[in-house]
Amino acid sequence: MSEVLRKAKEAKTAGLELMTLQTHVKNRALSDMAEALISKGETILRENKIDVEAAVKSGKTGAFIDRLTLNEKRIKDMADGIKTVESLPDPVGETITMWRRPNGLEIGQRRVPIGVIGIIYEARPNVTADAAALCLKSGNAVILRGGSEAVRSNMAISDVLAQAGYNAGIPEGAIQFIEDTSREAALELMRLNGVIDLLIPRGGAGLIKTVMEQATIPVIETGIGNCHVYADGECDQAMAIEIVINAKTQRPGVCNAAETLLVDRRIAQSFLPRVADELKKKGVTVRGCPETLAIVPDGELATEEDWYTEYLDLIIAVKVVDGFDHAVEHINKYGTKHSEAIVTTNYFKAKAFHERVDAAAVYVNASTRFTDGFEFGFGAEIGISTQKMHARGPMGLKELTTIKYVIFGDGQVRG
Amino acid sequence: MSEVLRKAKEAKTAGLELMTLQTHVKNRALSDMAEALISKGETILRENKIDVEAAVKSGKTGAFIDRLTLNEKRIKDMADGIKTVESLPDPVGETITMWRRPNGLEIGQRRVPIGVIGIIYEARPNVTADAAALCLKSGNAVILRGGSEAVRSNMAISDVLAQAGYNAGIPEGAIQFIEDTSREAALELMRLNGVIDLLIPRGGAGLIKTVMEQATIPVIETGIGNCHVYADGECDQAMAIEIVINAKTQRPGVCNAAETLLVDRRIAQSFLPRVADELKKKGVTVRGCPETLAIVPDGELATEEDWYTEYLDLIIAVKVVDGFDHAVEHINKYGTKHSEAIVTTNYFKAKAFHERVDAAAVYVNASTRFTDGFEFGFGAEIGISTQKMHARGPMGLKELTTIKYVIFGDGQVRG
Repeated sequence: MSEVLRKAKEAKTAGLELMTLQTHVKNRALSDMAEALISKGETILRENKIDVEAAVKSGKTGAFIDRLTLNEKRIKDMADGIKTVESLPDPVGETITMWRRPNGLEIGQRRVPIGVIGIIYEARPNVTADAAALCLKSGNAVILRGGSEAVRSNMAISDVLAQAGYNAGIPEGAIQFIEDTSREAALELMRLNGVIDLLIPRGGAGLIKTVMEQATIPVIETGIGNCHVYADGECDQAMAIEIVINAKTQRPGVCNAAETLLVDRRIAQSFLPRVADELKKKGVTVRGCPETLAIVPDGELATEEDWYTEYLDLIIAVKVVDGFDHAVEHINKYGTKHSEAIVTTNYFKAKAFHERVDAAAVYVNASTRFTDGFEFGFGAEIGISTQKMHARGPMGLKELTTIKYVIFGDGQVRG
Repeated sequence: MSEVLRKAKEAKTAGLELMTLQTHVKNRALSDMAEALISKGETILRENKIDVEAAVKSGKTGAFIDRLTLNEKRIKDMADGIKTVESLPDPVGETITMWRRPNGLEIGQRRVPIGVIGIIYEARPNVTADAAALCLKSGNAVILRGGSEAVRSNMAISDVLAQAGYNAGIPEGAIQFIEDTSREAALELMRLNGVIDLLIPRGGAGLIKTVMEQATIPVIETGIGNCHVYADGECDQAMAIEIVINAKTQRPGVCNAAETLLVDRRIAQSFLPRVADELKKKGVTVRGCPETLAIVPDGELATEEDWYTEYLDLIIAVKVVDGFDHAVEHINKYGTKHSEAIVTTNYFKAKAFHERVDAAAVYVNASTRFTDGFEFGFGAEIGISTQKMHARGPMGLKELTTIKYVIFGDGQVRG
């Protein structure tokens, strides 16, 4: 039996036990796991150092090395993250709704764990701790499969967590890490129907595309965001500038950052020079439509490709549009249904934007940067779903559960 | 452009309009669609006759011909089904929950249509009307792809519905039917990421397996049910017999029918002869474990394969188990997580069965046959999900929706 299949089957067995594990046992395990990360920090850092040295040797970029590198502070952050998850309410066991049928059957819809969750991710070792904690709290077994460049770091972290959890009463096999970093192992994982219930890819567009194409088990697509800010003809221009700057520059490398600014033609002459000035101060390059460049010449000409692009960088596409309808049309055509914002003082346009824009999070007069489990108040986040199935937008603990119907009868049969 | 891609793109455009279509327009269209089915009944029956004759000629089974054949009564039933959907509340637009963050952002979770839903089904033409009505009421565009044997019937029905809907104000392209019955067309449909949001296969195990394996767009697995009834050592035996007979024989060909009876060893001697007697009266063949056959010899010996089998027929597998834990273990190992029942008078076993059995619907003292959108009170059903993502158990109108977050700000930016 392959490593993947063996560990997945162990996880499935553990998942059945986790389903009914009491909250205080899970919390105790999370607390011990956080402490173990700190007390075993030296081992983790030693293993991480080997990964980092290999990555440096193979010529990885500085950003890559930065994401891969651990230090005491980052280990402390991971431990704090686990403690936060411990402090959140247990989502399992809530009866969401319950009703009585005319024949006397009582039917309840109850929140339960999903079972076994697979996480495929790239070279950020903190995902290991994060995902393990969220899955455990929501009563799920987890199978982690990280990138090859972080394999020693990930193994060290998952060993520490699995051992500490097991000692605290979590079933053996609840936290699994796949050591085989081959493509074959990943493919096998993606196709374990009947064993793994849900697969969440966390990483760049390439990883997510591969998983969507290859997996036969249910997948949640996460994290691609071609987000827009639309400055309406009726808006507080100072507010619009502040929102554009925040959405573009506060953290440009993340999925809820804005990539395109749409400007109503009615305010283009006054608004574009002001916003271009502020963007320039922040080091942002403008890729504008011809009309934009006619007003603010200090930019490059945008191509059709630009309207589709998630730059994740200090670049913004800017287009002058012919009012509200045109803006909505552009967003629904080029957007990735992640986060979209309008800045307007007009009540009807605010209402229509909420209704007509097809996205996970639709903002009126606020930055797209708030699409985030912490900012929404969920306390934690396993990813941001950009598909419409199961979960949409930031996914917290509730999104790691499913429901079951519990039916209370007294002998009912169907006529 | 292929037929599939062209129609899917038309559906996507229509879907954006449907998102905000008012309830009274959708209801008016549904009413007109129901009437049109009756008034154009002759055309539909004429086309159906051609399908039926071809199926007879090619030697299809009687059951197949029966599912394919339409008559006035069945057309009336389809029309009545559409009127029922008209009478149900519109699921779209509900704000499920809304809260205020410390920074003043108001975040609401709002129920919205999914977008474009694909339905791949076999030779039952009534699915055409059913699916079109449910998708329209929930604000979704639909792409129907039925089996080749029913293609003329399905085209006639979908033409009538699309035309009547369009005349009543539904956007053009909201109801699409794929005429190309080739395997290539089906595969293309299953891989239209970014155009089709959700695919629901309706049919036998073979169809569902193919779709699960081949599709790259999100799929809901439906309708495979290896369901169990467990007669506990502490139970009302008369109630247990009534439930077993109902679950097995009231309609053996459907997914919520029972396939295996588990009997606690403590009552095997008294219970098995009684239940075997009633099963025999109903023409049910027993496939028993050795212990069962030692008590009721009038049956065949069950193989390991039998515990996995969904007979959909007047056959029942029977196993003597070593009490409650063994029953739960058997169900979680061999079941398909559809519908599972215990018959017991013991409070603690009832509670533990609800908690420990991993299935969409878990019954205490009632027949598994109630797992059904109508019996649950949803008023309609597009299928029964046996996966854990998005929807679990009977899927009604709500399960054809997703959510979006609508955020009301007054200039908030992230710090």
